[in-house]
Amino acid sequence: MSGRLRALERRDRDAVEDILRRAGNFTPTEVATALELIDAWLTRGDASEYLTYVVAALEEDAVRGYVCFGPAPLTEGTFDLYWIAVDPDFQGRGYGQELLRFTEEDVRRRGGRWLLIETSSQETYGDTTRFYDRAGFGLIARVPEYYRPGDDKLIYGKRLVRAGLASNSHTI
Amino acid sequence: MSGRLRALERRDRDAVEDILRRAGNFTPTEVATALELIDAWLTRGDASEYLTYVVAALEEDAVRGYVCFGPAPLTEGTFDLYWIAVDPDFQGRGYGQELLRFTEEDVRRRGGRWLLIETSSQETYGDTTRFYDRAGFGLIARVPEYYRPGDDKLIYGKRLVRAGLASNSHTI
Repeated sequence: MSGRLRALERRDRDAVEDILRRAGNFTPTEVATALELIDAWLTRGDASEYLTYVVAALEEDAVRGYVCFGPAPLTEGTFDLYWIAVDPDFQGRGYGQELLRFTEEDVRRRGGRWLLIETSSQETYGDTTRFYDRAGFGLIARVPEYYRPGDDKLIYGKRLVRAGLASNSHTI
Repeated sequence: MSGRLRALERRDRDAVEDILRRAGNFTPTEVATALELIDAWLTRGDASEYLTYVVAALEEDAVRGYVCFGPAPLTEGTFDLYWIAVDPDFQGRGYGQELLRFTEEDVRRRGGRWLLIETSSQETYGDTTRFYDRAGFGLIARVPEYYRPGDDKLIYGKRLVRAGLASNSHTI
């Protein structure tokens, strides 16, 4: 069930591309953009500003999903989650929540205060809203008809408390 | 009063950098980012996706201000205005509104439906809000404490009607 999380490596690229294509909710342009960020990560690593991790199945080392996030330019402590995708044949097993939890923890370690996810209102049919809700994200803002007529941009966000701070506040 | 608008050229770069530095409301990182987009435009032109124009004084060909805008990735017909700046010694003479009007018309010609401007709540003290209001932009969304604690991201926007469509609608 629970996978093994590690930084994305070159050998994972084809598997991630396959997941993006089979996910069904990404247009060819979106898949190309996602792959550009992955290639920036593979070429420049941490310097690319697109941190990219995969979750692989524990036993088989097969990639089940991936996440790509990074610091938002010109901000202090705000991070964007750019892409998250799980193999459609292995959904509902917690890989997505595992990737999201890892992202939160990593962003917190890097001093992040805010984790934001921009998504299309067309993709919030189905399970997407519930997925973010369950992980503690709230709807922060909406830009009507941003992507195309009838397709809004939704900005979900979660405030991150620095490690240790949350528990300390209980002692006051 | 009214200037001459043309695409930014290499010989304008120093003047624009000087305006950005003297504008007083841009941090060194923001100036560096603005210059990166300008250099993308100087290197790749229209292919850079950062369309960059200057307004120069009519008689002297001295640069008074500049604007940088472009299509928002993964959208159909949404454009972002990334930077707009006017020489602080020549403000209040309509150069800013002229740059904004040109941007609107150019975006409309390119089939744009939406022109968006993301800005810091710290910069809306003073004349910025009035500047956008006067040009017909409305506040669309706000992300609290986006840039840093106490500094929100504000998204202003203006819906663009295709040339000819607005007047036709009066005949119905």
